[in-house]
Amino acid sequence: MVTIPDSLVHLLTDPNFGYLATVRPDGVPQVNPMWFLYDPQAGTLRFTHTSKRAKFRNLQHNPAMALCVTDPANPYGYLEVRGHLSEVIPDPTGAFYPVLGARYGNPDTPIPPDFADRVILVMTIDHVSER
Amino acid sequence: MVTIPDSLVHLLTDPNFGYLATVRPDGVPQVNPMWFLYDPQAGTLRFTHTSKRAKFRNLQHNPAMALCVTDPANPYGYLEVRGHLSEVIPDPTGAFYPVLGARYGNPDTPIPPDFADRVILVMTIDHVSER
Repeated sequence: MVTIPDSLVHLLTDPNFGYLATVRPDGVPQVNPMWFLYDPQAGTLRFTHTSKRAKFRNLQHNPAMALCVTDPANPYGYLEVRGHLSEVIPDPTGAFYPVLGARYGNPDTPIPPDFADRVILVMTIDHVSER
Repeated sequence: MVTIPDSLVHLLTDPNFGYLATVRPDGVPQVNPMWFLYDPQAGTLRFTHTSKRAKFRNLQHNPAMALCVTDPANPYGYLEVRGHLSEVIPDPTGAFYPVLGARYGNPDTPIPPDFADRVILVMTIDHVSER
C-alpha cells in the first residue's frame, strides 16, 4: 500500500477540494473539483458520482485517475496522487452524498435528486507526488 | 475560436491557480496547479514550463490538455477548458517566469535557476465546460 508522507496527509484528511483528472475515450483529459473521503487503512479515496455522467464513462474506458490537492495555507505546496478505479459501489439511496456534504461543512446536506443513479467510486492510490 | 462565457471569463483573467491535466505515455492522467496567462484575442492560455519535466514529455506524446479553475468566492462554481498544445516557444532567458510571478502577486519574482530550459507552452482552447 502506498504511504502518504506524514507532512502531507492533512491535505487528504482535511476537507479540501480535490481536482480529479480522468481521461476521455478520445484521449483528452478531463479535470474538475470533487469532494472525497480518504481511507488511510485501505489506501483509497472515495467519491460520490453517478453512473450517467462523463467521468463514469471515462473510467469504464480507462480506469486511471489522478487527484491534486493544494494546501490552502500554501498554494505552492501540493500533493498529487495517481491511481486507478478499484471498485464501484452502488449507492441507490444516495446515502454517501450527505456524508461528504457534512465533511465539507454542511451537516444538513440533503440527498441529491439523482440518488437512484449514485455510485461510490473507490480509487486505489498507486503513486504519490508532492511539491 | 472558442468563446468563454462573460460570466466566467474573470476566472481566467484573475490570478487564480489552474489545475492542469495532461496524460502520461502510460495513459495515466497527471494534474497539478499552474500559473497561466489568458490571451482572449488568441483564445489561448500560456504556461511557463521546462523542456526537461514530465508534463513536457507527456505533451510530446499526447498534446491534449485540460485546465480547471475554481472561483475562490464560490468553490462550487468552476470552469474547465479543454484543448491542445499548439505551440512551444523557447524562453531561454526565463523572461516569462517573472511576468507570471508578477501576475500572481510578486512583482519581484526572480528569473528561475532553470532558465536555460524554460519554454512557454501555448494551449489553444477547443472546448469549455462550466458548472
